[in-house]
Amino acid sequence: MNIYREPARETWPELCRRAEQDNSSIAETVARIVDRVARGGDAAVRELTLQIDGAAPEALAVGEVEFAAAEAAVSTELKDAIAKAAENIRAFHAAQMPREVRVETAPGVLCVQRPVPIQRVGLYIPGGTAPLFSTVLMLAVPALTAGCPKVILCTPPNKQGSVAPAVLYAAAACGLRRVFKVGGAQAIAAMAYGTESIPKVDKIFGPGNRYVTMAKQLVSGRNTAIDMPAGPSEVMVLADDTARPEFVAADLLSQAEHGRDSQAIAVCSSQALAEAVLAQVEAQAALLARADFVQHSLANSRIVVLADRAAMLDFANTYAAEHLIISLRKAEEAASLITAAGSVFIGNYTPESAGDYASGTNHTLPTCGWTAAYSGVNIDSFMRKMTLQHITREGLAALAPTITTMAEAEGLQAHANAVTVRLSQISAQS
Amino acid sequence: MNIYREPARETWPELCRRAEQDNSSIAETVARIVDRVARGGDAAVRELTLQIDGAAPEALAVGEVEFAAAEAAVSTELKDAIAKAAENIRAFHAAQMPREVRVETAPGVLCVQRPVPIQRVGLYIPGGTAPLFSTVLMLAVPALTAGCPKVILCTPPNKQGSVAPAVLYAAAACGLRRVFKVGGAQAIAAMAYGTESIPKVDKIFGPGNRYVTMAKQLVSGRNTAIDMPAGPSEVMVLADDTARPEFVAADLLSQAEHGRDSQAIAVCSSQALAEAVLAQVEAQAALLARADFVQHSLANSRIVVLADRAAMLDFANTYAAEHLIISLRKAEEAASLITAAGSVFIGNYTPESAGDYASGTNHTLPTCGWTAAYSGVNIDSFMRKMTLQHITREGLAALAPTITTMAEAEGLQAHANAVTVRLSQISAQS
Repeated sequence: MNIYREPARETWPELCRRAEQDNSSIAETVARIVDRVARGGDAAVRELTLQIDGAAPEALAVGEVEFAAAEAAVSTELKDAIAKAAENIRAFHAAQMPREVRVETAPGVLCVQRPVPIQRVGLYIPGGTAPLFSTVLMLAVPALTAGCPKVILCTPPNKQGSVAPAVLYAAAACGLRRVFKVGGAQAIAAMAYGTESIPKVDKIFGPGNRYVTMAKQLVSGRNTAIDMPAGPSEVMVLADDTARPEFVAADLLSQAEHGRDSQAIAVCSSQALAEAVLAQVEAQAALLARADFVQHSLANSRIVVLADRAAMLDFANTYAAEHLIISLRKAEEAASLITAAGSVFIGNYTPESAGDYASGTNHTLPTCGWTAAYSGVNIDSFMRKMTLQHITREGLAALAPTITTMAEAEGLQAHANAVTVRLSQISAQS
Repeated sequence: MNIYREPARETWPELCRRAEQDNSSIAETVARIVDRVARGGDAAVRELTLQIDGAAPEALAVGEVEFAAAEAAVSTELKDAIAKAAENIRAFHAAQMPREVRVETAPGVLCVQRPVPIQRVGLYIPGGTAPLFSTVLMLAVPALTAGCPKVILCTPPNKQGSVAPAVLYAAAACGLRRVFKVGGAQAIAAMAYGTESIPKVDKIFGPGNRYVTMAKQLVSGRNTAIDMPAGPSEVMVLADDTARPEFVAADLLSQAEHGRDSQAIAVCSSQALAEAVLAQVEAQAALLARADFVQHSLANSRIVVLADRAAMLDFANTYAAEHLIISLRKAEEAASLITAAGSVFIGNYTPESAGDYASGTNHTLPTCGWTAAYSGVNIDSFMRKMTLQHITREGLAALAPTITTMAEAEGLQAHANAVTVRLSQISAQS
């Protein structure tokens, strides 16, 4: 982890660069898997699961016996934690519920924007050594709060054909019991096209490895929406002399342990602070179990020294971090100047891990600079906003000159006709 | 245009099928154009504009002289129409402005969802014989209402190197004067990567031909968000005995004149109505100028007879139309059962052309069944929702067991440490 002291603006793009991700080498493999599932349905899913995961579950759907076993396997302590986290996530996402907007833009011209839940939603939860049951909460709670009527979840089985108990328990705790034991690109394909067991969905959510990411990108150009583009996780910490080096270091490391390609950037207001943070990073890193991930991601990470507060905030908006921690004097005011970040953590007692698990905010966030245009997962992600309009005969008569003038200027005669045919009628009925 | 009488449910997917759009043959050409602009900047844009549009504008940016000429060229009648349409669009989109959501999910745990305008927005307006100045209003008005600080517009020049006056006038009337004379895939590339003249943007909006569509799809997987997947325009009309065959026919034809690949579907409650609609379509089509487009798109179009009202609504949700006109008894009640449509037009005096131009709703809508998951362009399209949280030391202490229990169960030790390091401190400062 290097320290960059007062870097010139021209060097900022390089300092804000993410590790390159080139998945094009697996594009063909993924396309083959997706097409095979689209054509072959359950049989193709089973063959691929045996081949890739080394498992051959009898039924793809998780049954009651497995849910009961998961319930028995999860500790009371973890059950309580899941319940508390779910409650906070539910409270924050329920408060986001959009309302119907009704405006009479002119007499007799009623325009309505109506939020409607997406009908069929698919959630993907990766498998592996550390099953992300927290992501189950982050996706299932808003989906069900939004009122999506059909929500399913896919997650890969282990070699014994079973799924992590915490994942199953968290799903059931949210009220979601349509869980399928299938992972990777084959799961994304199954949700995009539907199979005999696994229903087709309208939108797919959730993180995954590069096969999952590539498959999501592929189906998003064909027939199924996705939550957002995916990339390695990242954090930026802005720190001045009100920050504690040991807290800053702990936050950088909690990002670094996510994976080998994670990135952590500290922006410090002085060289002394930068050096203190670096010393703390080294001291705390030595005590961590996931040393391999941590060492790799620290190599992608850096500390930047910028004494000027406005420059720090500009640098933060240039980087456009997934997670932005603001440990600055007048931190709220600083936060009000942030235009690009996924989730912002204000003050010395707001670690990223609070938002990752339990405060109520969502941890499914855009990365790689996509925060300049994308929101993190929120209640809107599970809804569509449909417009409706109802115009009376009188309302249409008043609008008619505007419509026909514009339609004729665009050379669209039939558009004008659709108005004039209605107004040339003698009787009126709206 | 064929009539399908009481089609069996198994045949619905075929009846709801859109014309196939395969743009893969132009993928390489578009990728070459995009990469050329990304590397070559303005010089590449100029070369491509000369080669593709046959024009060589001196400056890419539209200057004051051209705006003044456009102002002089547009009729007073059209200016009035543009002003009225813009006012209704502004009123409806301003009413959609999201508010900040603030929730204390637990004592000392404040979670905020803050809407922030996207900083840099690019609008694309196609050229051609009928310049779509109405689309300028549909994109520029919400962008500026949302508060996006940097909004630019690209539109192709004609062979004389100039741009349609109505497009320039509409842009200026909205307060948008950063207009660039560049079209096609080269315009999309310029906005995605930036050139010496044309600034890079965070999100690109607007319709276009298949080169534009393919370029938008390409950059959306690289570095720039886009509004939505694009496809040919379409309408569905639901009609029972309260509908007027001549109105239904006029609406079908106003869709059909959009382009050769447009699709219009009528769902009628009786065979007699279906036949009356078909007779009116033939009679009215004979009077239209764009006969080539109309004949082609009517070949993609159909009339379906379904006597059962619930079946009609199911069919509408299966088709998931961009535009859905409901000319049914108790039309509002029917509309409340629609889960997938871009924009809904209720009653006999609400033609699609009202929403296309002037009522206030947006005409940039998802097509090809994407309405199951996407909204049309609305105020949210120009904003991001960023979350923020501010936790006190006491708030963190209360959340700590939940966070650390979950982090440890996911094997993320440093996530737990970020909490414990803060609470092991003796002094407290939040």
